[in-house]
Amino acid sequence: METANAIERYMLDVGRRARAASRVVGRAETRTKNGALLAIAAALEVDEERLLAANRLDMDAGRANGLDAALLDRLELTPKGIRAMAQGLREIAAQPDPVGEITGLKYRPSGIQVGQMRVPLGVIGIIYESRPNVTADAAALCLKAGNAAILRGGSEALHSNRAIAACIQRGLAAAGLPADAVQVVDTADRAAVGVLIGMAEYVDVIVPRGGKSLIERISREARVPVIKHLDGVCHVYIDDRADPDKAVSIAYNAKTQRYGTCNTMETLLVATGIAGRVLPELGRCYREAGVELRGCPQTRDLLPEIGVATEEDWYAEYLAPILAVRIVDDIDQAMDHIAVYGSAHTDAIVTEDYSRARRFLREVDSSSVMVNASTRFADGGEYGLGAEIGISTDKLHARGPVGAEGLTTLKFVVLGDGHVRE
Amino acid sequence: METANAIERYMLDVGRRARAASRVVGRAETRTKNGALLAIAAALEVDEERLLAANRLDMDAGRANGLDAALLDRLELTPKGIRAMAQGLREIAAQPDPVGEITGLKYRPSGIQVGQMRVPLGVIGIIYESRPNVTADAAALCLKAGNAAILRGGSEALHSNRAIAACIQRGLAAAGLPADAVQVVDTADRAAVGVLIGMAEYVDVIVPRGGKSLIERISREARVPVIKHLDGVCHVYIDDRADPDKAVSIAYNAKTQRYGTCNTMETLLVATGIAGRVLPELGRCYREAGVELRGCPQTRDLLPEIGVATEEDWYAEYLAPILAVRIVDDIDQAMDHIAVYGSAHTDAIVTEDYSRARRFLREVDSSSVMVNASTRFADGGEYGLGAEIGISTDKLHARGPVGAEGLTTLKFVVLGDGHVRE
Repeated sequence: METANAIERYMLDVGRRARAASRVVGRAETRTKNGALLAIAAALEVDEERLLAANRLDMDAGRANGLDAALLDRLELTPKGIRAMAQGLREIAAQPDPVGEITGLKYRPSGIQVGQMRVPLGVIGIIYESRPNVTADAAALCLKAGNAAILRGGSEALHSNRAIAACIQRGLAAAGLPADAVQVVDTADRAAVGVLIGMAEYVDVIVPRGGKSLIERISREARVPVIKHLDGVCHVYIDDRADPDKAVSIAYNAKTQRYGTCNTMETLLVATGIAGRVLPELGRCYREAGVELRGCPQTRDLLPEIGVATEEDWYAEYLAPILAVRIVDDIDQAMDHIAVYGSAHTDAIVTEDYSRARRFLREVDSSSVMVNASTRFADGGEYGLGAEIGISTDKLHARGPVGAEGLTTLKFVVLGDGHVRE
Repeated sequence: METANAIERYMLDVGRRARAASRVVGRAETRTKNGALLAIAAALEVDEERLLAANRLDMDAGRANGLDAALLDRLELTPKGIRAMAQGLREIAAQPDPVGEITGLKYRPSGIQVGQMRVPLGVIGIIYESRPNVTADAAALCLKAGNAAILRGGSEALHSNRAIAACIQRGLAAAGLPADAVQVVDTADRAAVGVLIGMAEYVDVIVPRGGKSLIERISREARVPVIKHLDGVCHVYIDDRADPDKAVSIAYNAKTQRYGTCNTMETLLVATGIAGRVLPELGRCYREAGVELRGCPQTRDLLPEIGVATEEDWYAEYLAPILAVRIVDDIDQAMDHIAVYGSAHTDAIVTEDYSRARRFLREVDSSSVMVNASTRFADGGEYGLGAEIGISTDKLHARGPVGAEGLTTLKFVVLGDGHVRE
């Protein structure tokens, strides 16, 4: 009880400081914010040895606590990884400043001018696991968008995150920005998360990054709005008017370029009119890559050696070298399948038919909709956002990869010359 | 228990139908949607007598149930009100269609083109009280933005809402759109609201309209995201470089043009350097209009006859002919006051000073920020949105007056020619 009170007091103080700092960073000039980003990048490179030493403490503790290989892999900092973090910050500094842009300023019949100005959201809370590089990336994106950040990393990365936080503090100080603009929650106590997601007076939005169960729990319990990423059940639909070479190349890349990412294809839909031309070759390619196929009955007529796809497979996000394959009549059946089983993340059509491409773009209700391109392109870097704080599968506010602009909002500006309403 | 189950089944069925209809209305052509809006407008005018008769049933029941005069006033339909509803629909039809617009489509170094397409949110649930005209307005805005709507009006307006719903159905049928694109919840049982705000699989966003307690309860209990309006504690700050005539005119209009609206000024801030020039005259004007003033000690030195403003007054949304007045040192103290006591709704500065106007616009974090204009302009119609479904005091997604565009979101579109990720 005593401890719970102490954690709550600590977190409320973090929140109050963040709110106060957000007013300063929200009106900071572009060059000040970019100066901080470049100074943090330099500090990370200067501190390479210190960061590696801190990370070794976390890695040793992780091994002692029996963390699995995938978690340890995400936890590890390498000299190359540190250089990539610094480079990421420099790229964010090089992006245009989203804050303060005024759009649509027009005269109204009353004589006033009305437009909208892009402004920071305020205070962003990021809750994440393992990867210490999120500490630098998330702080940088929040800062670029004029927000204060409260970062709550995994307890398994506490030493690494503290070392990165020290670099962030040096960068903020060098640019004359308040230390509280980026705060790293310095307790492993899980109660801190509960307070963070409940203090709506100090936090404007929560971005959870991690496994689905973490994100679902936070979304359920949060009183602060959440920008979240849930499933990535992505589809490629090969239309019967597809170029077979492009179809094979895209379907192969969308599955095999990386297995564990949310924009990896999990179900391949093939029009019955082209299945005989593309599926045998795709079957060979996937077999060579070690991808297990699970097909509908028609697919298994063409590829008798593969397994059976059950109803569950159409919903599955494998994040593994497994692929569900279904033969469909046409684009309508493909879009119906995507509407029923998809997760509205990223879906692609391969076709040379203009009208079908146009229909697919308009009618498929996913955060990214593609024609003749691999679903693997659904990424903040590939889209030119500079970096991403995550990929939103929500519809409200931010959808798809969320960069600095996704951490801003719009307010109305009205200019008059003594105008009053009649 | 039996009844609760029946209500839940009914509402889940409404949700399922809305979801199915949203796919059809989401891809409907602009002329189809506009055709439906014009047909609904015509039906409302044709049905004038029927609407008035239905409304008389609600008014009689309301009087018998002892509804107060303000509620009865909001409930009443008049021939003029019906014409205004029809005219509102025609104005929404005349607005540009937000759906399908593609912006920012650019080539990326990889060779793909990336842009964003404006798309409907899906299914919108509107929960409102008394005013039957919301039934027509809300249906029209949802339809224009390609969404299906579930409308849950107050039980006191059930007959009126049914009569308007009949007109909406005729308009949808005339345009060949599905009847389920707009559903009016046809039960007075309050349990229906509980189901509506919980069925996240069928409803994408809830817009509650009504008293603050209704909105707070819905926000607290909803599992579906909510676009909401809470307080409107709006300020006018008269800078010491203000034109005194404009200052008096704006401060008078912002308070007295209407008392019960959310964009009415509730606190007047006056720079100490100009207080002696504007406050005596404003005091006279407000007295003539019957506005009660409550001032800080310095204000009462100038206007000894007025009451004392307490800490509570700075937080108050009076919605009445009462105004809190405070003399401040300068723009910094004014902006600090607004940050502490304001509700981030609408705030205005009156000044001829360029740099101060620029600072106020950038630094005041409210949904509408104004220079030399009355806060009463914060309105969808005045801003050129055609109509508004409400004014959002949230930061995420939609901020300020919400028109058809606020009921849409953006998805990424990617165009390639066989591109794969390396």
